Amino acid sequence: MTDGKLILLRHGQSQWNASNQFTGWVDVALTDKGEAEAKRGGELLKEKNILPDVLYTSLLRRAICTAHLALDAADRLWIPVIRDWRLNERHYGALQGLNKAETKDKYGDDQFMAWRRSYDTPPPELADDAEYSQAHDPRYANLDHVPATECLKDVVDRFVPYFEEEILPRAKKGETVMIAAHGNSLRALVKHLDGISDEDIAGLNIPTGIPLVYEIAADGTVTNPGGTYLDPEAAAAGAKAVASQGSK
Amino acid sequence: MTDGKLILLRHGQSQWNASNQFTGWVDVALTDKGEAEAKRGGELLKEKNILPDVLYTSLLRRAICTAHLALDAADRLWIPVIRDWRLNERHYGALQGLNKAETKDKYGDDQFMAWRRSYDTPPPELADDAEYSQAHDPRYANLDHVPATECLKDVVDRFVPYFEEEILPRAKKGETVMIAAHGNSLRALVKHLDGISDEDIAGLNIPTGIPLVYEIAADGTVTNPGGTYLDPEAAAAGAKAVASQGSK
Repeated sequence: MTDGKLILLRHGQSQWNASNQFTGWVDVALTDKGEAEAKRGGELLKEKNILPDVLYTSLLRRAICTAHLALDAADRLWIPVIRDWRLNERHYGALQGLNKAETKDKYGDDQFMAWRRSYDTPPPELADDAEYSQAHDPRYANLDHVPATECLKDVVDRFVPYFEEEILPRAKKGETVMIAAHGNSLRALVKHLDGISDEDIAGLNIPTGIPLVYEIAADGTVTNPGGTYLDPEAAAAGAKAVASQGSK
Repeated sequence: MTDGKLILLRHGQSQWNASNQFTGWVDVALTDKGEAEAKRGGELLKEKNILPDVLYTSLLRRAICTAHLALDAADRLWIPVIRDWRLNERHYGALQGLNKAETKDKYGDDQFMAWRRSYDTPPPELADDAEYSQAHDPRYANLDHVPATECLKDVVDRFVPYFEEEILPRAKKGETVMIAAHGNSLRALVKHLDGISDEDIAGLNIPTGIPLVYEIAADGTVTNPGGTYLDPEAAAAGAKAVASQGSK
């Protein structure tokens, strides 16, 4: 049996990536640049002949549209799709909607980086009646509790068990599974796949729109630690750009 | 409990609708006009507040893309999706790829209309090694037998049992189910829902991109026989245009 594969795909540039705002669970659309990134991601899959058998997405349109455009380019729109809130971006609490550069200026570098990269300290909670709250969003009507903020540890705690139960068994059987998700939900997954410490995960940045492929053996182990970006040069440049967010 | 709903949505104009070719299972894309129709379909759903809880599509990109654009416009991209080959368009056999007007000229009006609208006479079979065959298409790898041609009765025989087992129970529970499919697979479904005879179904044409809504009671009966088009004027004009295909 050939190894299974996980294709991790962070959504292309969103409108709030472009305007440098904290997004979290706010359902913003892709920019034209983001759509082009998604399409290029699908073309890379087709070129390398790494073709998904099944797709998992978050419930947010920037991930759903990225997957749609990528699969269209790879001629795989017809594969089964599962959407689940546990793939969602980290909820950014009271920071949702705020400009990153203004937030950095107002609260200082240390607080800014703690909110962005601390493993277990969430930002302040977002009020249920706030403009950018998802407390009353119909897509989360089945959740016992809609988050009002999350740290990366919260994302690990909701996403990794779902990954282990629902997604990994498919890869162990030899399927190629595409996961279209977000900067922080994918950081949570990579932390788990590569055994990265709570401290070291702060330094990991995932670029938008470039497929990151992990090979999975039948026993569930990763046979290419760190994964393989299908366009390594673009991935390195993209990760650097993510790291510098907050600058004007 | 409020009635459940079925939203039937025929894909917007495809490239081969525009070039007047028989399409069947050939996986052609939407035109710009088709994309605009799909978006308008979703805007109608939003305006009328008829919001799908779940989506069923065929395995063909013109239906998948229509649903994507419509749900994007209706702000419902996040709902669960099920794709199944039994919603596919009728397989058009050896006619796939041929121009409709040329076919009508070559074989005459009677044969042309028999192939298009006879209930139980399929067109000649398409050879497995023909350019537009789906015999080796990976999306149908799990089928025992990939069709080489189909009449409308064949579509009824594959789609209606699936509808009864998988889709109708959701509507009976009060869900709003969107079905993004094709001219002939939706004709097969409407024949069943409205109890149309094998003869009379020849006169029924379904326009592209306009949601057709059936209300379903808890016992599974249709409470608005014939269904309700969300834009009746555009639907009447669209059905007339479908009927006149084959003209130059």
